[in-house]
Amino acid sequence: MNALMNDIEVIKTKHSKINEVDFDHLSFGKTFSDHMLECDYKDGKWQAPKVVPYAPITLDPSAKIFHYGQSIFEGMKAYKDGDNNILLFRPLDNFKRLNISAKRLAIPELPEAYFMEGLKALLKVDSDWIPKNEGSSLYIRPFIFATGKGFHASPADEYKFVIATAPSGSYFAGELKVLIEEKYSRSANGGVGFAKAGGNYAGQFYPTQLAIEKGYQQVIWTDDNTHEYIEEAGAMNIFIRINDTLITGPTSDRILDGITRKSIIELTEKEGIPVEVRKITVSEVVEAAKNGSLKEMFGAGTAAVISPISGFGYKNEDFDLPKLENTYADALKKRITDIQTNKVEDPFGWRYKVI
Amino acid sequence: MNALMNDIEVIKTKHSKINEVDFDHLSFGKTFSDHMLECDYKDGKWQAPKVVPYAPITLDPSAKIFHYGQSIFEGMKAYKDGDNNILLFRPLDNFKRLNISAKRLAIPELPEAYFMEGLKALLKVDSDWIPKNEGSSLYIRPFIFATGKGFHASPADEYKFVIATAPSGSYFAGELKVLIEEKYSRSANGGVGFAKAGGNYAGQFYPTQLAIEKGYQQVIWTDDNTHEYIEEAGAMNIFIRINDTLITGPTSDRILDGITRKSIIELTEKEGIPVEVRKITVSEVVEAAKNGSLKEMFGAGTAAVISPISGFGYKNEDFDLPKLENTYADALKKRITDIQTNKVEDPFGWRYKVI
Ligand SMILES: Cc1ncc(COP(=O)(O)O)c(C=O)c1O
Ligand SMILES: Cc1ncc(COP(=O)(O)O)c(C=O)c1O
Repeated sequence: MNALMNDIEVIKTKHSKINEVDFDHLSFGKTFSDHMLECDYKDGKWQAPKVVPYAPITLDPSAKIFHYGQSIFEGMKAYKDGDNNILLFRPLDNFKRLNISAKRLAIPELPEAYFMEGLKALLKVDSDWIPKNEGSSLYIRPFIFATGKGFHASPADEYKFVIATAPSGSYFAGELKVLIEEKYSRSANGGVGFAKAGGNYAGQFYPTQLAIEKGYQQVIWTDDNTHEYIEEAGAMNIFIRINDTLITGPTSDRILDGITRKSIIELTEKEGIPVEVRKITVSEVVEAAKNGSLKEMFGAGTAAVISPISGFGYKNEDFDLPKLENTYADALKKRITDIQTNKVEDPFGWRYKVI
Repeated sequence: MNALMNDIEVIKTKHSKINEVDFDHLSFGKTFSDHMLECDYKDGKWQAPKVVPYAPITLDPSAKIFHYGQSIFEGMKAYKDGDNNILLFRPLDNFKRLNISAKRLAIPELPEAYFMEGLKALLKVDSDWIPKNEGSSLYIRPFIFATGKGFHASPADEYKFVIATAPSGSYFAGELKVLIEEKYSRSANGGVGFAKAGGNYAGQFYPTQLAIEKGYQQVIWTDDNTHEYIEEAGAMNIFIRINDTLITGPTSDRILDGITRKSIIELTEKEGIPVEVRKITVSEVVEAAKNGSLKEMFGAGTAAVISPISGFGYKNEDFDLPKLENTYADALKKRITDIQTNKVEDPFGWRYKVI
């Protein structure tokens, strides 16, 4: 591993853009760091990854990414603690999930060292890009897409793996009102919903736009067959608190196995918050909203960490969530970000020190 | 329209590749013509299309096509008749379907003239690339993808529309044995299956590979809920002949409304072949195979026209289709390609003369 790490070629940019960046007012994923990791699959294998200047990518018009959506990605964050240590959160889980996605999308799986050592080499070169302000971090986007040519609807023979990074502030601005979806869906049984496949996200845009036009910010996805089961909140997993119990649906081939979600489940168990992983129906949530037992709803994911939901719409009716003093969402968010940024002990071994 | 057509800027290549092409031995979609149409969406509108040399496309690593699969496409063919007329088949239907796909994928809809006049301008410049050999044609690939930047999971603000073309031979080589899918699926209720969205195709690759490993060439998609209803054959619509009746499933939000399919339905009605558009179950087909009433199965689509299926697998059992003398598939394929290539009358007004 270390041998390989030392082998990663680094070509540095001659023109750093870092002085153009206002680290006190970062948006999400719009400013890109100086370098990226690049690694090509050709002749039947992944070639050695390289750190290169962040630069445009040139592709043949027949590259399969344009035609058949053969692409997958991951989302991670790097943090700096008070001692300037560079920290990641459960990065191996992202690597493993990338390969789970790869398999389902007929993309060749990536060697672990190319991902991990490549990522570390990149973060070292761009360590000045990791924000220190609370609530900011370096958002990391590993992705793989089909570069191979041809109009035949079949897997490509060439791919590109890239890791690009973007110093970022918070994902959502303002409150989060959601619409429980009754018509559209994001994934099928036996489909690719459990994978971080590009096409899953494009399919969500139009229903989300419709929800935004109605005054909501996100869609709560339900199962495509009955629209009775609550599945995800936009591109986040969802948690629902009824009385004192926190509930989240089980993962399935329609639902992304989120790292934030599973960390929350472990955290609550440790903190003595009762948690149930079970199917949860829309009727149950509506009923709980009506009788006052619905206390909290929140989305969970790397980009937005934990996003409290302030209300939801369903069948032309709006339901408000109560404004509590001490929420599970706040407590869990604080605990998880404190672990991520090395402010508290990490009994789980989730924190990963790069340097 | 004609005013606009004359306005389309044409930048010709200085190095035609046409002499490198063996028009007697064309594969499918691997050789690209000298030019392409290019048209960008920016500042809130589609800019004027241009015919330019076929050339690589350069994109920022954060272009949304790489991350969120926001892409759609069409598939068409151009033919030349004995008098060197350039002919298309129902091109307006492709244009309309492109915009149906665009809407579902939150891509701005394209003006009709940009598509039609752009396509005609391109075909005129590359008219020597249209094969004349029987069974060959110029495969036309219009596609739109997100070029706008950023890691936020939301629609892009910039897009590129391209039409590229490829002189092509037949899509399938050899026999077509299919596997009826019991586990995987290509689309969800309320999903994007009815759109020609890139992501739909990537999701099919892995299940198709598994079928290929078992000795089949394609998968027959069934509904994701019960796997009891027959939906599509790979990237083709499917027809099943039981006794003398031809059956095809109704279109839905899970199924592409194929132009070949609807042309076949109209043709059979005209030719007095009994046709039924209704849901068809796997059990019905298996039953018909067993009692001998299953006469034919074939896929229908632009790329492969009509592809007779020689047998199918289901629950570890294989069923052969009979080898008939006079098949509906052959008769319909001949009729449709004769109309396309101007060998017979076209009572439907499907043929479209470019020049
Ligand atoms: C569809 C979907 N669900 C859930 C999540 C949350 O996963 P994670 O916590 O691993 O970021 C994501 C991605 O972040 C996602 O894209
Ligand atoms: C999924 C799918 N079904 C059916 C078809 C057939 O449609 P058409 O006859 O318009 O080519 C296609 C595309 O060609 C397709 O991609």
